[in-house]
Amino acid sequence: MKRKIKKLNEENLIREISDFFITLDIKKVLQKITDTLEKRLKVERVSIFKKKEDKNVFEFFVFSKGEKELKRMEIPLGKGVVGYAYKRGLPVIVKDVKKDKHFYSLVDQAVGFKTRSILAFPLKLKGRKYGVIELINKKRGIFTRRDVEICRFLSPFISLALENAILFERLENMFLGIIRSFARAVEAKDPYTSGHVERVEALSYLLARKSGLRGENLRIARIAGILHDVGKIGVPDRILRKPDKLTKKEFEIVKRHVIYSKEILEPIGGIEDVIPGIYYHHERYDGKGYPEGRKEQEIPLIARIISIVDAFDAMASDRPYRKALPAKKIVREFLKNKGKQFDPELVDIFLSMEEVKKILKTL
Amino acid sequence: MKRKIKKLNEENLIREISDFFITLDIKKVLQKITDTLEKRLKVERVSIFKKKEDKNVFEFFVFSKGEKELKRMEIPLGKGVVGYAYKRGLPVIVKDVKKDKHFYSLVDQAVGFKTRSILAFPLKLKGRKYGVIELINKKRGIFTRRDVEICRFLSPFISLALENAILFERLENMFLGIIRSFARAVEAKDPYTSGHVERVEALSYLLARKSGLRGENLRIARIAGILHDVGKIGVPDRILRKPDKLTKKEFEIVKRHVIYSKEILEPIGGIEDVIPGIYYHHERYDGKGYPEGRKEQEIPLIARIISIVDAFDAMASDRPYRKALPAKKIVREFLKNKGKQFDPELVDIFLSMEEVKKILKTL
Repeated sequence: MKRKIKKLNEENLIREISDFFITLDIKKVLQKITDTLEKRLKVERVSIFKKKEDKNVFEFFVFSKGEKELKRMEIPLGKGVVGYAYKRGLPVIVKDVKKDKHFYSLVDQAVGFKTRSILAFPLKLKGRKYGVIELINKKRGIFTRRDVEICRFLSPFISLALENAILFERLENMFLGIIRSFARAVEAKDPYTSGHVERVEALSYLLARKSGLRGENLRIARIAGILHDVGKIGVPDRILRKPDKLTKKEFEIVKRHVIYSKEILEPIGGIEDVIPGIYYHHERYDGKGYPEGRKEQEIPLIARIISIVDAFDAMASDRPYRKALPAKKIVREFLKNKGKQFDPELVDIFLSMEEVKKILKTL
Repeated sequence: MKRKIKKLNEENLIREISDFFITLDIKKVLQKITDTLEKRLKVERVSIFKKKEDKNVFEFFVFSKGEKELKRMEIPLGKGVVGYAYKRGLPVIVKDVKKDKHFYSLVDQAVGFKTRSILAFPLKLKGRKYGVIELINKKRGIFTRRDVEICRFLSPFISLALENAILFERLENMFLGIIRSFARAVEAKDPYTSGHVERVEALSYLLARKSGLRGENLRIARIAGILHDVGKIGVPDRILRKPDKLTKKEFEIVKRHVIYSKEILEPIGGIEDVIPGIYYHHERYDGKGYPEGRKEQEIPLIARIISIVDAFDAMASDRPYRKALPAKKIVREFLKNKGKQFDPELVDIFLSMEEVKKILKTL
């Protein structure tokens, strides 16, 4: 045993293992694991199955070849070669799936892939069954004892890297959940805006993506979209709920909500980068907005994005005192205000988005 | 090189490395790293230094021997053997610190420890300088080439495990920051309660600890302490801000805040466990509270904790219409209400706490 493991411990393998832990982004972690296994064991496809907590199913992660997009689906726990390896807690090799009674073709159908041979290796975490890695279609020859040994060597690191990424994802989701929830609670004070938070989140994220933002910046756009009106908590109910037109003085008070947003968010370590997108989302491209009267590129990109999305959702939603505007009128408003209220390039990108066209079609 | 690394790759070492990643709790990660290094290299003490981002200082982690408490402090980057190893990017061995010009004794003074010999090994992450591990006082003989090789082998995993834990900690702090911030924003609507959120957080955490809660349950107590009154966002300003006594009908509306809290928090995945402590924090031990009239052990422990802390802070704080109550009166109130409003055992624990006595002394 010792001898065998020593044989496998080339420096490269160690470096590859440490790569599993180089990020907590679940997609990247799985990518690294998959790449290492594909390369090391010379197989066509790697799938990773994790038993869901408190549920008798596997969560099944696989990258669709080529597009490199991560698919997640649930499959029953006991089924197939993977289920067999999981139950036994031992590696299972299937040289030819056509001749094997344990082969379960639903997954094949789902991912549109032709399986010939399989090595399924059970994963453990802290001494407990955790999941299975499945190596599909050995490119040349058959799965060997050495392949199994490499799996045995890598498997504790695979479980750990995956579990850490899942934990991190859970915390991030909790974080998004709580800010969504608070944003909704603030919104509930403003009876005109039901569902506004979710829509601005989704469209801000999509427009940011279309505008070329990636990674952490996309995350910031999403969070800013959620929290853009959070400072409304500082505006008295009687003004927020006033059904008539606001007086000039009342409007001045409403305008303060961007300042309140900033004050609420500033003490929070780690989300400083989100504030500009929120604080400046009522600036206008021509410099006539608030709070500072910034113009054009002086206004942070994410604020220019939210400005468009926010205005769009206001026009595209019913209000107690009016229906949503017709699609044509909304488009006309945007075209009229290109370069005045809104960043002209962003307006073009926004109006060309499939998701926006879809919403406009319903109006 | 290859030969040497192979010699070190015993199965145990691999298992110990995977232990670095078994948790994202920074204290536990450092504990694992420190234990492994102390045991493997037979040294008296291990310190870990991480360069702070955007700052020319090390953050310095060390466990005080015996109490196993994690200390964190900042020290200047360039100083000492550690700074020298960092700058050079190469391991440094000091056989006798008395004879070495690089030795920097401030750290020794801070942790009350006598350094004789040092092996300082630089850490990298993604090809960039990350920090230094410092091994202090080889128990027998001198630091060897093999010791350096073990460090070289372990070092990428140390950086990664530490970085992941730091990232996780940052996300958790951001999460706590945002819920604190929102709780404060809600509180700002209620002009009588400035600073209430922070005080209830701190005392709930401490009372939970004294009551024997640990780990995740302590975390829940803290979060419930922060969010206990978040549902007040659903109570109209005119009632929250009313300076006079509330009418019966108005009080019924105020009582709904625990229901609003529940509604706000329920859609958030991952914080379900926090809700009972909040929802039931106005129940009374004798069953005469709200919203359900539960009594004694039917009321979740964390709710019983928050009930005491919340009442204490209300009595111990100034209000616009009255000063804080005198210490004697507060204690009398608690003793009078033991078994009526409050869990009697928890009252005893609470009143015996140093932190509570300290606050009472100021009144």
